[in-house]
Amino acid sequence: MAGREAAKNVLRTQRIELPSWAFGNSGTRFKVFAQQGVPRDPFEKIADAARVHAHTGVAPTVALHIPWDEVEDYTVLARAASDAGIALGTINANVFQDDDYKLGSVTNPDPAIRRKALDHLFACVDVMDRTGSRDLKLWFSDGTNYPGQDDIRARQDRLAEALAAVYERLSADQRLILEYKLFEPAFYTTDVPDWGTSYAHCLRLGERAKVCVDTGHHAPGTNIEFIVAFLLREGKLGAFDFNSRFYADDDLIVGAADPFQLFRILFEVKQAGGLDQDSGIAFMLDQCHNIEPKIPGQIRSVMNVQEATAKALLVDTEALAAAQAAGDVLGANGVLMDAFNTDVRPLLAELREEMGLDPDPMAAYARSGYADEIVAGRVGGNQAGWGA
Amino acid sequence: MAGREAAKNVLRTQRIELPSWAFGNSGTRFKVFAQQGVPRDPFEKIADAARVHAHTGVAPTVALHIPWDEVEDYTVLARAASDAGIALGTINANVFQDDDYKLGSVTNPDPAIRRKALDHLFACVDVMDRTGSRDLKLWFSDGTNYPGQDDIRARQDRLAEALAAVYERLSADQRLILEYKLFEPAFYTTDVPDWGTSYAHCLRLGERAKVCVDTGHHAPGTNIEFIVAFLLREGKLGAFDFNSRFYADDDLIVGAADPFQLFRILFEVKQAGGLDQDSGIAFMLDQCHNIEPKIPGQIRSVMNVQEATAKALLVDTEALAAAQAAGDVLGANGVLMDAFNTDVRPLLAELREEMGLDPDPMAAYARSGYADEIVAGRVGGNQAGWGA
Amino acid sequence: MAGREAAKNVLRTQRIELPSWAFGNSGTRFKVFAQQGVPRDPFEKIADAARVHAHTGVAPTVALHIPWDEVEDYTVLARAASDAGIALGTINANVFQDDDYKLGSVTNPDPAIRRKALDHLFACVDVMDRTGSRDLKLWFSDGTNYPGQDDIRARQDRLAEALAAVYERLSADQRLILEYKLFEPAFYTTDVPDWGTSYAHCLRLGERAKVCVDTGHHAPGTNIEFIVAFLLREGKLGAFDFNSRFYADDDLIVGAADPFQLFRILFEVKQAGGLDQDSGIAFMLDQCHNIEPKIPGQIRSVMNVQEATAKALLVDTEALAAAQAAGDVLGANGVLMDAFNTDVRPLLAELREEMGLDPDPMAAYARSGYADEIVAGRVGGNQAGWGA
Amino acid sequence: MAGREAAKNVLRTQRIELPSWAFGNSGTRFKVFAQQGVPRDPFEKIADAARVHAHTGVAPTVALHIPWDEVEDYTVLARAASDAGIALGTINANVFQDDDYKLGSVTNPDPAIRRKALDHLFACVDVMDRTGSRDLKLWFSDGTNYPGQDDIRARQDRLAEALAAVYERLSADQRLILEYKLFEPAFYTTDVPDWGTSYAHCLRLGERAKVCVDTGHHAPGTNIEFIVAFLLREGKLGAFDFNSRFYADDDLIVGAADPFQLFRILFEVKQAGGLDQDSGIAFMLDQCHNIEPKIPGQIRSVMNVQEATAKALLVDTEALAAAQAAGDVLGANGVLMDAFNTDVRPLLAELREEMGLDPDPMAAYARSGYADEIVAGRVGGNQAGWGA
Repeated sequence: MAGREAAKNVLRTQRIELPSWAFGNSGTRFKVFAQQGVPRDPFEKIADAARVHAHTGVAPTVALHIPWDEVEDYTVLARAASDAGIALGTINANVFQDDDYKLGSVTNPDPAIRRKALDHLFACVDVMDRTGSRDLKLWFSDGTNYPGQDDIRARQDRLAEALAAVYERLSADQRLILEYKLFEPAFYTTDVPDWGTSYAHCLRLGERAKVCVDTGHHAPGTNIEFIVAFLLREGKLGAFDFNSRFYADDDLIVGAADPFQLFRILFEVKQAGGLDQDSGIAFMLDQCHNIEPKIPGQIRSVMNVQEATAKALLVDTEALAAAQAAGDVLGANGVLMDAFNTDVRPLLAELREEMGLDPDPMAAYARSGYADEIVAGRVGGNQAGWGA
Repeated sequence: MAGREAAKNVLRTQRIELPSWAFGNSGTRFKVFAQQGVPRDPFEKIADAARVHAHTGVAPTVALHIPWDEVEDYTVLARAASDAGIALGTINANVFQDDDYKLGSVTNPDPAIRRKALDHLFACVDVMDRTGSRDLKLWFSDGTNYPGQDDIRARQDRLAEALAAVYERLSADQRLILEYKLFEPAFYTTDVPDWGTSYAHCLRLGERAKVCVDTGHHAPGTNIEFIVAFLLREGKLGAFDFNSRFYADDDLIVGAADPFQLFRILFEVKQAGGLDQDSGIAFMLDQCHNIEPKIPGQIRSVMNVQEATAKALLVDTEALAAAQAAGDVLGANGVLMDAFNTDVRPLLAELREEMGLDPDPMAAYARSGYADEIVAGRVGGNQAGWGA
Repeated sequence: MAGREAAKNVLRTQRIELPSWAFGNSGTRFKVFAQQGVPRDPFEKIADAARVHAHTGVAPTVALHIPWDEVEDYTVLARAASDAGIALGTINANVFQDDDYKLGSVTNPDPAIRRKALDHLFACVDVMDRTGSRDLKLWFSDGTNYPGQDDIRARQDRLAEALAAVYERLSADQRLILEYKLFEPAFYTTDVPDWGTSYAHCLRLGERAKVCVDTGHHAPGTNIEFIVAFLLREGKLGAFDFNSRFYADDDLIVGAADPFQLFRILFEVKQAGGLDQDSGIAFMLDQCHNIEPKIPGQIRSVMNVQEATAKALLVDTEALAAAQAAGDVLGANGVLMDAFNTDVRPLLAELREEMGLDPDPMAAYARSGYADEIVAGRVGGNQAGWGA
Repeated sequence: MAGREAAKNVLRTQRIELPSWAFGNSGTRFKVFAQQGVPRDPFEKIADAARVHAHTGVAPTVALHIPWDEVEDYTVLARAASDAGIALGTINANVFQDDDYKLGSVTNPDPAIRRKALDHLFACVDVMDRTGSRDLKLWFSDGTNYPGQDDIRARQDRLAEALAAVYERLSADQRLILEYKLFEPAFYTTDVPDWGTSYAHCLRLGERAKVCVDTGHHAPGTNIEFIVAFLLREGKLGAFDFNSRFYADDDLIVGAADPFQLFRILFEVKQAGGLDQDSGIAFMLDQCHNIEPKIPGQIRSVMNVQEATAKALLVDTEALAAAQAAGDVLGANGVLMDAFNTDVRPLLAELREEMGLDPDPMAAYARSGYADEIVAGRVGGNQAGWGA
């Protein structure tokens, strides 16, 4: 197995971005279960994100969702983040929650609605200019529910037009990250349903347009690590939205449903240099803690990514390459499994202690009293959620 | 092909139950798009359902969802229905929208919450006693999101206990219909995930416990008509919840995604005598008109079921049996396809005229002015939706 | 609805290519059931293909699989085809049935095996030069069964290298068509698993490299017509391999499992001009008649494509565009369904009579006595199958 | 975590049955790659199985497939097994490889073919009488490829009749184990497609009829551990066919595709007492080593089951139950994951040494020279495979 120290060096510099919305209430179409102590505004979300970073040491940025995280002055929000020891990260544009968007946003058949959506995307770039964010992440819920409802190809034309306008609006150090998703909320066609569609659009846009792989957005049976390896080979992987799923876009804690898959994905990332500090890949969480408490849910998620990364780093790549070259199927598989079967928790505990952190972030958070504090303190007001 | 007149005789007596909630607002976890003119209470839902029946002639009952359709006096509601030319039908129990049910209702680890859920089920039987409903339809959202979260087997014990108590509470002319669903809102285990689970529980309960097949509740690739044929052979098919899907539980208009599948399902029903008036099978719609207008959505759905039924009735079963017995694969398939490829819309138009209806229900509704009427009249108040 | 005469004009010029291997024995890993009268060499396959064309009038070419259809002199084979009233079409390269290819062909870790595979591909181009075929269709079974077995990215490098060498070898009027498939026979990674991978490789190769969409090669839930529309928009759709499936790559008769899907696919083709005679899209069948007789199986398949095409042609595109522009979800869907629900068999019968054919190709073939003739005549020798 | 010693005590008595056919050649419909040294008759298969047991110590029986393993005198075969240190186990009946079975075996529309299939099943019971086998495992490939091809319900009647006749024929200490499978080789309906169908038939047959869960025979997204827990609760789980898959019935090495799933399954087994020596559950492998060497493939498979079992045994069930009762979602999940994340290889190495075995079975086999021996010795004759 590869060296523990080398692994720790990479793990020490790993960065995982947190989504502000993971701290608000979420749920399914059947019910959003409210939790006590949930943030009531972007500032409280940032405070919670900072706690996750305080316990894990590798989550120093928080992504915003606009308009969910709209504030009057983003300088003030950025300062709040900085005061809390973190920074603002990716800007996620939300063009799916206005009644106008019933039949789509940038692909809507109505040009006035397309214009409105585009204006919102421009406004998001304005926010980026103020927050200093590098990445604009675009996920479009656009699609159709019924065959014939709209023209598949015309919608691609409209999409391409909107993307080009947004890309044009970005400054030279800003990037456009285009996310894809098989289905939901659209149930017949989705305008960016798979990596191929996102890739093709990004290719036309230019160098600073990249694909976002959300690990829950694929058809059953899709080999995600293949997509990751392919996009890395093409220089087109921009970001991950990490989560896990047994069925559809379940948005469970990353690594909870299939830890072996997460390991395989991170192994491909590592093999292609994606764990290097200048790789340009944003590693983000994007999950819903519908029934579990949100802050520990995020801490656990960060730890799961760390554990999978540690295992990926421990793979004996020389032995692996030798077995592969020899056509030794069981041998090559055995080398990979050897790393996966290793218990990396002691290594990570050690790393945390070296970083001045508690070796057990979950226990440390539980002891901290923060959970009681926010339950007691956050009374009145409206809890944050997907609609706010 | 089988006789047109015989087909019309069956189609004339076909009964399709409408869901009261299809007339309220619905959506996905991302957004519920409000529509103008949506009912604000159960009485307005009944008025809308009555319009669907007025135009189709085969949808004379409406199912209620409790507590969504809670009223002080169900006799008054029943009278309103009767005045509008329809009747109240199946009672659907809702034990998934209270904060207490975050970890389950009748399978919750907390006995007090189980008790609360059971009491609600009893209250639903009380409603049935007042509305004269035959069927109590039970769908439980109960399940878990994470491996280890709860004990799979203990939850089955709790489920069995609750079902037995409810079954016991029913009178001799009332039935318990147990619905299954693969996933959502639970994302790891669901306590009644498949027909086998529902069947096994119903078997233990007794004669008046039957399975409900919701056409959108299966894993990809599941052959639904096989399940239908199997349950009919076992005498355990109690009801359909009709809708259609391309992906998961999309709840699209029945027949919209795969009209051939709907035809195959109805052919199995017909073959087993399930279209006979005393078959005891409840044919219900259960869909969400998230982006299309609700009343025409329901009319189209009823028509789609009629068209698939008409085709099923036209299958030349003698020729089919002969080809099957001879092992003539293409011949047997050809007999079935011959019926499916037939355009049955003229036959249904003829039937409607014989029944004193407009041959084109969609056009008749559009002309009726009812849509404008409800938009104008239903101002103020709270629109009905899944949470109300 | 659009005009019947206009539809017939397109249908008259439609061309569907037959696969020589559909006339040989096929099966599953569990069993290949031999059928009487099956061809014993490429010449007999061509005779059978010619019968399908004789009865349908729209299947004038037959695709070859090399080495299954290897002959000493392809001029003789081409003449046999021409004498039978058809022509040779696409050349399919088979690099999956030699023991050397256990771990891959062009992506094999062993350079000697890669060289062998590449040489076979060159040999296929030699065949093309002799048969005058325009298209070289490449499907690679290459992939891995176990995580770690081989390097995902290195295999892409090897694939790209081989494709470039083959593309280079083609003459200016020859094309490379790259097929993708989710899985089988490889069960972990497949080197060309989806349209995106095929598209990206074709893009690098150049203008004459195009994607082949096999309708049975997708993950569950994939919207195939979206892919078709997207590739057409990009000018990268080169060919179809038509078949149908309920589960995986079942290779059933096209249109048998989901006729509505086939209609939607052909509607997208038609909308993008793909039915024009100079569209450059090859419409091929690629199926296995494991249990049904092969020649009638092919006739039925051709008829199914015709019926779906006819329905696609009958869509009232003006009314559709108007409803789409108005955001009339049910109206737009209704326009599409109106065409799908139409019984186009009379129109096709009429067309066949105008073309001097029997209006009922299945019945005409049954009457022809050809089936008995080949059973009686093809005695001794080895029946053709996938291994021969 | 639960005690290591207690875990070892269970692991010491664990029994995993090997399939004789895993040692023969296998493949896909595209190609069967022959391997050197493969057995040429049942006796050589038994020799190979004995080697797997020699290195693992927990695989003392081998299952037969009839007619693949047909011999003149089963007493001689049983003695050969006994001489090699193992015993004959489950009898698997094969009624899918005769040309007569093209349209089914016991559900064939032709009564003469049904009779033939039934006679073969009786002959399998005769074999059991001679080998002393307890279990008759029935997997039927029966089904249809095209809608309408045969009557779904009539096939169930025929199936029930055949099962009843076989069950009747069994002696009081013999059992009938009914396997289910979603699809393949049938591509439209399968006569025993899911656990519910198998369960319902077994219920009617009686106490000694049980369900076999093959881990690769489910629809995408199916929660297998739920089914396992449910069948155990009903007393109807008879056997496992272990293997793993990424897509369909891939028949990969158990635990290779999703080790976490295997752990969850074995945890449910353990919780219900299924690891007790008198549980009556047969733990079998059923896989294809298409590209990897067969004997090491089987050794690795046995080890994978052992590792998953060890982890299941280490779960701290008291802590788990406490967290579950408290509704502590993350805590309960954490207890389960704690065991899964443990590296149990040292514990198993220790156990092997205590059992007098080499702690590393893979290395010990590689050193043994047996592989070279069989390559050198097994020259001439026909290699065993699925057709022989």
